[in-house]
Amino acid sequence: MYGHPEFDLFEAIYTTRAMRRLKPDPVPQEIIMKIIEAATMAPSNSNRQPWIFLLVSSPENRQFIAERYKEAWEKYYFTAEKKLFLENHPATPEAKNLRSAIYLANHIGEAPLLIFACVKRYSDPTRAGQPMVGSIYPAIQNLCLAARAYGLGTAITSLHKHFVNEINQRLGVPPEYANEILIPLGYPRGRWGRPARKPATDVTFVERWGARPHPRSHDG
Amino acid sequence: MYGHPEFDLFEAIYTTRAMRRLKPDPVPQEIIMKIIEAATMAPSNSNRQPWIFLLVSSPENRQFIAERYKEAWEKYYFTAEKKLFLENHPATPEAKNLRSAIYLANHIGEAPLLIFACVKRYSDPTRAGQPMVGSIYPAIQNLCLAARAYGLGTAITSLHKHFVNEINQRLGVPPEYANEILIPLGYPRGRWGRPARKPATDVTFVERWGARPHPRSHDG
Repeated sequence: MYGHPEFDLFEAIYTTRAMRRLKPDPVPQEIIMKIIEAATMAPSNSNRQPWIFLLVSSPENRQFIAERYKEAWEKYYFTAEKKLFLENHPATPEAKNLRSAIYLANHIGEAPLLIFACVKRYSDPTRAGQPMVGSIYPAIQNLCLAARAYGLGTAITSLHKHFVNEINQRLGVPPEYANEILIPLGYPRGRWGRPARKPATDVTFVERWGARPHPRSHDG
Repeated sequence: MYGHPEFDLFEAIYTTRAMRRLKPDPVPQEIIMKIIEAATMAPSNSNRQPWIFLLVSSPENRQFIAERYKEAWEKYYFTAEKKLFLENHPATPEAKNLRSAIYLANHIGEAPLLIFACVKRYSDPTRAGQPMVGSIYPAIQNLCLAARAYGLGTAITSLHKHFVNEINQRLGVPPEYANEILIPLGYPRGRWGRPARKPATDVTFVERWGARPHPRSHDG
């Protein structure tokens, strides 16, 4: 369909969790472009399509990013508090996620492709300089689902914002764009699976904040 | 799959465009909850799942919202400039979109369901009060794709922000949540179809800003 393989929508939606352990195997360029095309089918503010997908796969660029990513992880994210949590609660889902993020921080340069999803900043006076965030995340979700159909794992991170000026200078990202999201992409080492989520009835209210949907409705 | 109908992923991705002309026919509650469950499979910052889906279908609430939505449309969005554009360029894709948005502004109360997608605000000092926007839009994209599979049309709007205090007071949305997105949902009057988008090669750079992918790569 549309030059893509057949893949069930809900299989994609229910199994596209963050895959942070990726094999270094390269991804064919034609697959990458098909995935980006799928991303661009997403809606955006007045259909402005204010996105740029900046693909990085050269070893030098990946190493440059990987060094800084690891540094930012150690310095800003992997706090003493988080280390303690990991020691004391190693069997929790949070600890599992944290170990996966530690892996990414130490191996992000091994991912065959790093995608920087950039989005235009507003220019009108009330929001000047603010990135059009709502016009990039739907495309990213499409990208991750499409990658899933090709057997490719993705993760969404914004830790690169701690060293975004260095990145933007090296890659030439102009100031009118925000380098908003970093997506490592590659064939996963791990298995696909349904992510841990609260029940839908826990995050749904009907007509008024706090009013839960009728329980019967969840059985349907 | 996962209690949902079978539907092709790429068919969903390539035909889920904004559907602003909706029939008033009600949508079964069990379908709504399945769509919200699909939405919640989306990633979020540290898997916080900071979303609340506030469902509005009572005639009184819909009328309350519709009156204000139309007012906000006239007052803030449908400017003299846009009216002039519509008169002078009626055959453009932009004019087509604008007419569809005019329809929505005048008929939003007829949609059988209005979903307010709310998201928590950050509480840490550097970002205090800012909504976790990146943790709601991926879920919204899942929601729109899942709705498509059930034959349900959606559109994403944030025009309600012009009267969000009134809405939040009426529906009880607490200040620690941002009432970020309004999604009218219903069976569409129009037809599904591939939306107008720039070619993927126009929005992709390789290794450096401005460096287009090799043309061959797009043929693959």
